[in-house]
Amino acid sequence: MFNEQYDVIVVGGGHAGAEAAAAAANLGSKTLLATMNLQTIGQMSCNPAMGGIAKGQIVREMDAMGGYSGIVTDRSAIQFKMLNKSKGPAMWSPRAQNDRMRFAEEWRLMLERTPNVDFYQEMVQGLIVEGNRVVGVRTSLGLEIKAKAVILTNGTFLNGLIHIGDKQFGGGRAGEKAATGITEQLVSFGFESGRMKTGTPPRVDGRSLDYSKMIPQPGDDNPERFSFLDTPVLKEQRECYMTHTSATVHDLLKEGFDRSPMFNGRIKSIGPRYCPSIEDKINRFADKDSHQLFVEPEGWDTVEVYVNGFSTSLPEDVQFKALRSVKGFEKVKFFRPGYAIEYDYFPPTQLKHTLETKLVENLYFAGQINGTTGYEEAASQGMMAGINAHLKINEKDPFILKRDEAYIGVLIDDLITKGTEEPYRMFTSRAEYRTLLRQDNADLRLTPRSFEIGLASEERMRRMEEKERKSQAFVDFFRNTSYQPEEINPILEEVNSSTVGQADKMFKVFARPQVTMDHMMQLEKVSGFVTEHELDREVMEQAEIQVKYSGYIEKEKLNADKLQRLENINIPENFDYSKLKSLSFEAREKLEKIRPVTISQASRISGVSPSDISVLLVFLGR
Amino acid sequence: MFNEQYDVIVVGGGHAGAEAAAAAANLGSKTLLATMNLQTIGQMSCNPAMGGIAKGQIVREMDAMGGYSGIVTDRSAIQFKMLNKSKGPAMWSPRAQNDRMRFAEEWRLMLERTPNVDFYQEMVQGLIVEGNRVVGVRTSLGLEIKAKAVILTNGTFLNGLIHIGDKQFGGGRAGEKAATGITEQLVSFGFESGRMKTGTPPRVDGRSLDYSKMIPQPGDDNPERFSFLDTPVLKEQRECYMTHTSATVHDLLKEGFDRSPMFNGRIKSIGPRYCPSIEDKINRFADKDSHQLFVEPEGWDTVEVYVNGFSTSLPEDVQFKALRSVKGFEKVKFFRPGYAIEYDYFPPTQLKHTLETKLVENLYFAGQINGTTGYEEAASQGMMAGINAHLKINEKDPFILKRDEAYIGVLIDDLITKGTEEPYRMFTSRAEYRTLLRQDNADLRLTPRSFEIGLASEERMRRMEEKERKSQAFVDFFRNTSYQPEEINPILEEVNSSTVGQADKMFKVFARPQVTMDHMMQLEKVSGFVTEHELDREVMEQAEIQVKYSGYIEKEKLNADKLQRLENINIPENFDYSKLKSLSFEAREKLEKIRPVTISQASRISGVSPSDISVLLVFLGR
Repeated sequence: MFNEQYDVIVVGGGHAGAEAAAAAANLGSKTLLATMNLQTIGQMSCNPAMGGIAKGQIVREMDAMGGYSGIVTDRSAIQFKMLNKSKGPAMWSPRAQNDRMRFAEEWRLMLERTPNVDFYQEMVQGLIVEGNRVVGVRTSLGLEIKAKAVILTNGTFLNGLIHIGDKQFGGGRAGEKAATGITEQLVSFGFESGRMKTGTPPRVDGRSLDYSKMIPQPGDDNPERFSFLDTPVLKEQRECYMTHTSATVHDLLKEGFDRSPMFNGRIKSIGPRYCPSIEDKINRFADKDSHQLFVEPEGWDTVEVYVNGFSTSLPEDVQFKALRSVKGFEKVKFFRPGYAIEYDYFPPTQLKHTLETKLVENLYFAGQINGTTGYEEAASQGMMAGINAHLKINEKDPFILKRDEAYIGVLIDDLITKGTEEPYRMFTSRAEYRTLLRQDNADLRLTPRSFEIGLASEERMRRMEEKERKSQAFVDFFRNTSYQPEEINPILEEVNSSTVGQADKMFKVFARPQVTMDHMMQLEKVSGFVTEHELDREVMEQAEIQVKYSGYIEKEKLNADKLQRLENINIPENFDYSKLKSLSFEAREKLEKIRPVTISQASRISGVSPSDISVLLVFLGR
Repeated sequence: MFNEQYDVIVVGGGHAGAEAAAAAANLGSKTLLATMNLQTIGQMSCNPAMGGIAKGQIVREMDAMGGYSGIVTDRSAIQFKMLNKSKGPAMWSPRAQNDRMRFAEEWRLMLERTPNVDFYQEMVQGLIVEGNRVVGVRTSLGLEIKAKAVILTNGTFLNGLIHIGDKQFGGGRAGEKAATGITEQLVSFGFESGRMKTGTPPRVDGRSLDYSKMIPQPGDDNPERFSFLDTPVLKEQRECYMTHTSATVHDLLKEGFDRSPMFNGRIKSIGPRYCPSIEDKINRFADKDSHQLFVEPEGWDTVEVYVNGFSTSLPEDVQFKALRSVKGFEKVKFFRPGYAIEYDYFPPTQLKHTLETKLVENLYFAGQINGTTGYEEAASQGMMAGINAHLKINEKDPFILKRDEAYIGVLIDDLITKGTEEPYRMFTSRAEYRTLLRQDNADLRLTPRSFEIGLASEERMRRMEEKERKSQAFVDFFRNTSYQPEEINPILEEVNSSTVGQADKMFKVFARPQVTMDHMMQLEKVSGFVTEHELDREVMEQAEIQVKYSGYIEKEKLNADKLQRLENINIPENFDYSKLKSLSFEAREKLEKIRPVTISQASRISGVSPSDISVLLVFLGR
């Protein structure tokens, strides 16, 4: 039937598969997106939100390169927040709540509008391999479809097994079938496979909640957006709410612990550490008698609500009874219970930097199949796999982002060099160069690189160049233009910064932490420049960051060099990690278990971040 | 978990389940809609269209009583047509093409906005029965939920088995799981169950079609709508297209007949006669070398297209090769192949007129589980089951529509008295009183009845009364107001109707077939009346129909009486039905097979319509 030869077949239509198909097709590859259900393309399987700390940066990076996630997120957003705005710009992280249905629909329609993307609904059950090279896929109906490269993005579907209390059944998501055949075949090729676990909280009926007992969590007053293109900015937003568990809730949950698949040994695999189930939180943090819950609407109109923070695989009656003891949830009605799901993954050390497998040529893995967790982590791997599959089959150089270029570079380098034994999630602390890897400069960092390989559009490139030119001109203006003490001192007094005695370049006072762009704009020369050159908010923000953070950036580079030099320090045999309170909980646990002999070895342990290494170095006196 | 007792539990969220939940809840019953997947509520499993001949009338009837299908259809329509507009108003049938995603979303949101409807996502696997009365359901996780009444609307999901060529796999729809457990339990209670079959055509990529080779099928110039309320009327519409199969296409399809589950015995059950697969059409109408195909867009924006008329379970390579030989489909790309599905049903003779089962009290069946086919047939059964479940548990009189009140009455009476051995579809010919059962007067017929039981809203009732009052006043005006020959004769000459010599009541000339409301409006008295009383299009149409069809209605009543009187006529033993060309094909086949002894017996055979009985009577000389 498919007498035509595809360039790239993408198996799976989630975040990874969708970005993979978009990237390959936009580069010119004839691409087929094969999925078990065309109506669930771009489905948000877990919470109805995109972005967040480090993850928001990844979405911006994908967008800068011409990915779709940012545009889809903007078009379907119901709330926008720039997290960590009180901290330095390296920590600023955009996050959106989304309308779940709109999000999936936008994804599907954007892919449909992409030339070179074909669609086919059927379960892919095997690969066609000739020698050690993949040449196509085989579907459950026995159909063979040929391609030069195949990207697997099976998410939680490979032999997916859903757990609720002591019940378990096969499925890739609640209400959807699991996928079979692929793991078995890959293992027969010599791949190592493992099992991972993830979970999701109950969905409930918003009409049954008493929001007056909860704390409203509104979006930003001046919402921004993910895409560097002209996607719409939200005019209205929906509120989320915060509430808390209590000792009573915990006691009720504990009553179900003997029937918990997490604790009775039925679930053997490891779940996402930073997205633990509520029973896991109670267990691990026994001294805490309250945890935050975020109550997130599922869309503009629907009454369905997502109970973020209450992920659980306890029996449904236990989930229900406990949730009813949460403030505001006294009369809660369930749409569906939370559950855990176990699925197959392939330790990502079996991949090259391009996400091509080492064992089978032209076969790529992206997303949860590589042991990651998170929409953004999945999508960005998909995009990189799509790009590299296209480049490979066209005999071009691979496209690899370095650790100082992008969070995506950090992610993939971590995965393939360190591997992971638990679902890998991105954090700012995983990046050595996070002052460089900001959300605001993702376009400056990555649009030229993507444009060079033919992916980012002319328009993106033009916009990026204009932003760069204008912000550089503005920075130069601050470097070259002087203030007079009489005009700047009133401002400095206002912010309790020491006054100046003589004229100097504006750059100098602007670099002071207390002085913001708003203050500088009180100077006629500055506001005049802005008006004359028609600088928009984005350009002004970029210039401000470049003025204020030049110092930090220099410092970071020095730190990085230091880390490099001191990498081979020995750690005493019986070193007491519990003394180091500033180590992350995960790092302490891993270090105590593995007991690395050198700092270098320690740094390669999954979950031990560069910040943890710094802590160790400081303690060891270097 | 569900410590609360529901009044009504509806199992399934398709057309039947959705209307059932809406009706029960709007009457005041605490209702739970339990479904395997909350994201597929209101899913159009087959073609993206509502209404059509006899089916459009059913939608109007549901709407008149306060059902949601009409509103959902209007809000998600992409094209509207009043079919049979060239025939008498008894044949006028509204039909809409719909945006598949919008349709499902509207359904879900309307149900969410309905007080008393709760939702729960899980597979119901069994009933809880005490004595011979149902008191709840049991889910696949073992959860027990109590209710006073249960409505089963399982559609094609009960032990659903999907066939494509010589492949078969379990599933309720492509990409979705089958439901198990219920059939087995019902059979253990003594229910008789059977298997039926239905099918669906391939979905294809609209970008791969050459529409210039097809015949455009636009919507009406002045599109109307389904609901009697103020739903929006379409301002823009999407076009459908028509193309045809050919001898070449048929030959290509025939090459796969040996691998067809229809012909090699793998599918044992009977499919919908009036919605046959393309292989069935080729087989049954061997002399025809061309069949119509309607190319229907799946929504406003999507490129997915539904190939109406090409339903098939042939192997996918055969489907593909053959479809590529259809004009305009030379380069077609598949989104997914067509398939057939076999599922369990329960012969509906096991039901009462209320759709309650005879064996188990307070248990109701609606939709395909009763052996019907079609969204509208399913939805209306759901609505009637929802109404009657509510009335029963509140010890009120049942709500039964008679055959001369509604198509819905005909449908249910046919089902429970005649049963059906093949998927039952509604036709105008199934109704003895079809001149009475028009789409335009569905509100006049049914809104008062529904209002009486507390379902139709005050607003519906007020609108209906105003329409009735105004149109009656307009009819009275025609009865009581005289024309002058000099004003009417020019009009009569224009339409080639004989002129009149003296003044008479307007009713008389208006009743002539050639004279329309537009003609009458040329008379100042008429247009003056319209302006003065602010009559809208609907009222004018209603008055016109009542003036022009009073004769037909009288005649119909006489015919009905005659049928009644002559019911017990004997049919000669070796009667040659092939002589009666005006018998429907289905009736001839059934009569030849069953060979009824009397007309009365003949009339009770499923598929033998009142028109067929008339034909027999005429031939037998009565």
